Amino acid sequence: METISCQSGIIYEFSKSNKPVKTVASGTTIEMETYDCFQNQIQSADTVVAEIDWNRINPATGPIFVEGAKPGDVLKVKIEKLEIQDQGVMVVGPNLGVMGHRIEQMEAKIIPIRDGKALFNEIEIPLNPMIGVIGVAPSGEGVNCGTPGAHGGNMDNKMVTEGATLYFPIFVEGALFGLGDFHAAMGDGEVSVSGIEIPGKATVTLEVLKDVKLRHPMLETEEVVTQIVSAETLDEACKIATEEMIDLIVNKTGRPLSEVTMLMSAAGQVEVCQIVDPLMTARMVVPKWLLKQLGVELI
Amino acid sequence: METISCQSGIIYEFSKSNKPVKTVASGTTIEMETYDCFQNQIQSADTVVAEIDWNRINPATGPIFVEGAKPGDVLKVKIEKLEIQDQGVMVVGPNLGVMGHRIEQMEAKIIPIRDGKALFNEIEIPLNPMIGVIGVAPSGEGVNCGTPGAHGGNMDNKMVTEGATLYFPIFVEGALFGLGDFHAAMGDGEVSVSGIEIPGKATVTLEVLKDVKLRHPMLETEEVVTQIVSAETLDEACKIATEEMIDLIVNKTGRPLSEVTMLMSAAGQVEVCQIVDPLMTARMVVPKWLLKQLGVELI
Repeated sequence: METISCQSGIIYEFSKSNKPVKTVASGTTIEMETYDCFQNQIQSADTVVAEIDWNRINPATGPIFVEGAKPGDVLKVKIEKLEIQDQGVMVVGPNLGVMGHRIEQMEAKIIPIRDGKALFNEIEIPLNPMIGVIGVAPSGEGVNCGTPGAHGGNMDNKMVTEGATLYFPIFVEGALFGLGDFHAAMGDGEVSVSGIEIPGKATVTLEVLKDVKLRHPMLETEEVVTQIVSAETLDEACKIATEEMIDLIVNKTGRPLSEVTMLMSAAGQVEVCQIVDPLMTARMVVPKWLLKQLGVELI
Repeated sequence: METISCQSGIIYEFSKSNKPVKTVASGTTIEMETYDCFQNQIQSADTVVAEIDWNRINPATGPIFVEGAKPGDVLKVKIEKLEIQDQGVMVVGPNLGVMGHRIEQMEAKIIPIRDGKALFNEIEIPLNPMIGVIGVAPSGEGVNCGTPGAHGGNMDNKMVTEGATLYFPIFVEGALFGLGDFHAAMGDGEVSVSGIEIPGKATVTLEVLKDVKLRHPMLETEEVVTQIVSAETLDEACKIATEEMIDLIVNKTGRPLSEVTMLMSAAGQVEVCQIVDPLMTARMVVPKWLLKQLGVELI
């Protein structure tokens, strides 16, 4: 299996203009190494935050050109394995995150990872390793890797983890896939603007699907299928994710809109991914036990 | 144990003007029976929705005057038991819920409860019985029972279930507690505007706490403590819930705001209660394993 290192190439925006670091056939499994979201600039508590180069933030490794990927297709990304290193970092700062109006100075905190726990001073936090930034190139202008959108990007969705499968609408030839911004742990919301940021390595299988149409990313696990939507407000993101999911189920099942709406109200879950990036991200989660009874698969 | 029946008295708004149906000592356990949110007007699929009296919606049983409860105190409500009847109903309608812009007519659907499942046509939905409307009288004008707020009310929070303990700020003498609007099942968001609406009976213990100050309701389970906030937008509700929780932990622990903010980002969960009532409701969920390591209890 081939490994794409951080040195192979990184991007700071998802863009059709990016030169691929690698071309692979549909169905290829590769390893991709990643920096943390600060491009590994904060290595100790002595790092002077003021000296960080803020132009080197949220690097994603890639992009990977997937052969056969055309605009209108879907890129299926199975996260086969997700490995993180043994030291993470968190930050807070003025105007960052939910508390940014009351945080007076930028602060960084080194967080060692030991025996499956993140050590925050004496506090042991269970790990939930996840990928913050993952996606494809959008159709129009490039989008910086700190911003989420229909192309994926900085969705900061804690369900993007080992074993999950993502589906992205493809906007440009080759899809131009990239990923980065791993977190050792993060709660829904990512309220400080940072998870436990950490370098790592993901093993992914990239496959082009020709007969699926999507407007926003989807994510599938053994238990659920989810629609992921980013928008100016969380209210809007939640409503669009719900409506997209309902329309998908109506289209697949032929059941009336009224019934599917009721079913989503009784058994679908509107959940928060993050509320701190330039756009807000929500997911609408539908259990597979329901889809099974409806006799459909959504993807 | 005394039972407060629906016939004892119901309210359509939480208000300091409501006459108590019962006065109890702090620490009393009582049973409270409830109508469904349509005051049991929809009993069969033949019910003509146009003939429903929309002035009789969201009745709450009560109010209960709790002796010793003064403005500034907190009412602790332990939900000892929650029982639902064997038939529920769901509705959709124009301008109701996330899909209201595309639903052309009011529709109601009867949903039998059999063997621990809700039967939606041939589809079996697992039950998660919960209380939609629960709260105390607000300080100023009355608030109709369809609207949530700092006094509780229509929070539609699926965590309000058997075994949970709620804490409400008390605004008026006696607290004037009431509850109603049970759901046999509901997902986070309540996207159609209705859960599986059902009559039932709750056994609750009401206790006045004198040395706790709250601005919004809180909820506690064996695993977590949550802050519940309703606001004009979900964005605002999420942010206020997060900030209230962070301030509470800072005050209890004496730890710096920056550290508590980071901890909430790594291990706190911003979750959606509902996005369809006149105000939106969010909860900030903090795991007790974290509070234990911080050496504090929040209530």
